[in-house]
Amino acid sequence: MSSKVKGDLLIAQGGGPTAVINCSLYGLVRQAQESESVGKILGARKGITGVLNEDLVDLRKQPKAIIEGLRNSPGAALGSCRYKVAEDDYPKIMDFIKRHRIRYFFYNGGNDSMDTANKVNLLAEREGYELYVIGIPKTIDNDLPFTDHTPGYGSAARYVAQSVRDLGMDIRALPTPVSIFEAMGRNTGWLAAASSLAKTDKDSAPHHIYMPERAFEMEKFLADIESEVGRLGWAVVVVSEGIRTADGKPVYEASGVTQADQFGHTLPGGAASFLAGEVYRELKLRARSEKPGICGRASILCVSVVDQAEAEMVGRAAVDAVIKGESGKMVTLERKCGGKYKCTTGLVPLVDVANAENKMPDEFIDDDSAFVTAAFCEYAKPLLGGDLLEYVHL
Amino acid sequence: MSSKVKGDLLIAQGGGPTAVINCSLYGLVRQAQESESVGKILGARKGITGVLNEDLVDLRKQPKAIIEGLRNSPGAALGSCRYKVAEDDYPKIMDFIKRHRIRYFFYNGGNDSMDTANKVNLLAEREGYELYVIGIPKTIDNDLPFTDHTPGYGSAARYVAQSVRDLGMDIRALPTPVSIFEAMGRNTGWLAAASSLAKTDKDSAPHHIYMPERAFEMEKFLADIESEVGRLGWAVVVVSEGIRTADGKPVYEASGVTQADQFGHTLPGGAASFLAGEVYRELKLRARSEKPGICGRASILCVSVVDQAEAEMVGRAAVDAVIKGESGKMVTLERKCGGKYKCTTGLVPLVDVANAENKMPDEFIDDDSAFVTAAFCEYAKPLLGGDLLEYVHL
Repeated sequence: MSSKVKGDLLIAQGGGPTAVINCSLYGLVRQAQESESVGKILGARKGITGVLNEDLVDLRKQPKAIIEGLRNSPGAALGSCRYKVAEDDYPKIMDFIKRHRIRYFFYNGGNDSMDTANKVNLLAEREGYELYVIGIPKTIDNDLPFTDHTPGYGSAARYVAQSVRDLGMDIRALPTPVSIFEAMGRNTGWLAAASSLAKTDKDSAPHHIYMPERAFEMEKFLADIESEVGRLGWAVVVVSEGIRTADGKPVYEASGVTQADQFGHTLPGGAASFLAGEVYRELKLRARSEKPGICGRASILCVSVVDQAEAEMVGRAAVDAVIKGESGKMVTLERKCGGKYKCTTGLVPLVDVANAENKMPDEFIDDDSAFVTAAFCEYAKPLLGGDLLEYVHL
Repeated sequence: MSSKVKGDLLIAQGGGPTAVINCSLYGLVRQAQESESVGKILGARKGITGVLNEDLVDLRKQPKAIIEGLRNSPGAALGSCRYKVAEDDYPKIMDFIKRHRIRYFFYNGGNDSMDTANKVNLLAEREGYELYVIGIPKTIDNDLPFTDHTPGYGSAARYVAQSVRDLGMDIRALPTPVSIFEAMGRNTGWLAAASSLAKTDKDSAPHHIYMPERAFEMEKFLADIESEVGRLGWAVVVVSEGIRTADGKPVYEASGVTQADQFGHTLPGGAASFLAGEVYRELKLRARSEKPGICGRASILCVSVVDQAEAEMVGRAAVDAVIKGESGKMVTLERKCGGKYKCTTGLVPLVDVANAENKMPDEFIDDDSAFVTAAFCEYAKPLLGGDLLEYVHL
């Protein structure tokens, strides 16, 4: 099957923004503008809710400077949502698509967005409506399967690594001996793990990394810190916001008010602050916590040039895919084996990726040292798009 | 009085590091190297405790690349301290100075460091020992009096402003409607106030700023947020870590374990996290908090080029001052009136500056809107060293 007739295009952005999600939008718009198969280029505001509420923006009518500026603007330019699409929303979505004669539909997001895209695709097939649906991956958490990594991860990883390197330079000069840095990542440790790339030698930060892939043990954590402060006089450790004890309870729930949404999803955050209090109480060591939170996924200063280029590439590849007649697929990044780092794009069925989660594999975690392995560093380093800032010591 | 004989020099760094404290060290070392009046160039490790423990580094023996690298390295390269010098430490310090025949003594720090430098100077005078003592200002808090601003403030201010602009781009796209950003500043609002420079129009972040110069009122705060979310659907507000209620109690003390040191100084931090919980509890609005903490004073990526140049300038001016025979003074920055922004250096007696504190003046705070005035923005903007990154909206 291949679309011969000129068709109109609709794109939506879902889930949490990344520093480069608008690079994917840029790539998609530019590729669509360059294609003779694409008519209107429409964006839905606030993710799929823009489709349900008919809130659209005509991207062909945007000035060139705005489209170019997308490449260096954080946030989600179309607006995003965390709306869980209900079963009876799908007929409304299809109705919208038919009325607006949309031929190409793209959802740029994480697992939930891929699930939505998959269901829209199946419904169109069932109703015999010619629609080409492609998912464009995006998440700082790097938790989508079947892709080497996700656009957005490299930049957020660079932010974490650079920030932890900076933090270490400050803490080693200070009499407040402990700092606990909280990285984002509700269920996976990919971002916390990226802090390992800050390390230049055995004394420099970070000294330990705690990821949700392993049960968090308070005693081990305190012993790790005590030992490091004994050795160096200071310690910088990194925790994922989503670390959990063996009973599955998130550490952040101990830290204050737990905020739940209508779906029972709690807002993570506060693990590092809680743990700093524990270090002070149990070890009598003054301990700070640093939690840049969302600033870490919105920093254009820390953007990875590799991530930026790949985010644009997946946006362009999505347009290429529908024009070739592909549908029900998500664009993936495929790393070339051997030699210099390089990724090309591929496609994977949406049904395989929807609602699945890519956790850190065992070979990337060094349990003995509460750190990552050399294999992880080799995997992650090229994604950061060049060396971090380097500093001197007297 | 002017020092004709070649003399040895000692420099120490005190208090919390800044992104440019090592630029002052660089300026001082370079100016000393270029002077025929200076013999040895010694650095005390870990502030004044390096003097008490005879822990020194010979800065003339450092490779040129290391000295050059100081300009772009965060933290305090010599190490710092928060050691409160006791009365009976002063004779030990004088003994050290005499034994090592130190002629020039520099302390690069905040209020406490200026107090120490002042006392060392008075003791030398009393004992008739020819010593030239100059304080070099440094603090991200901008709370030293008699100087237009302090080296270190501009870079930390730039970090806050850029981070809050980035954060606003992300939050406005999201269904989590509120974010509370915590800026450093135990007793003064200068850093929180700098977030105002992120604002590009009436809708963009930040919407309100809460500074320790004003008693924090929870009801007003909640009403401000409710009103902003009602107007826009989202709100980003900034709080100083040191905000206090009318009874003088820091808000951060409500947020968890309060860590006190041997002098009863508590470690601030946690106000934003506590307030996010209150917003959720009282207004039923999901609220995040972001607290980059120390990362904000260690970021070379966010350094202000103006701040960097001025930090070097005050280091050089300190050397010039002792060679001219000045002592018992702190270098100041003096802003040229009218025309393009420019600062030159001046000198102020250490006794005037020691233990004094420069709070934000009333004319910089707009109480009605919980924001800063245009006069503050005019004051602070040139210190950030150029425009922030600019972003587009669809």
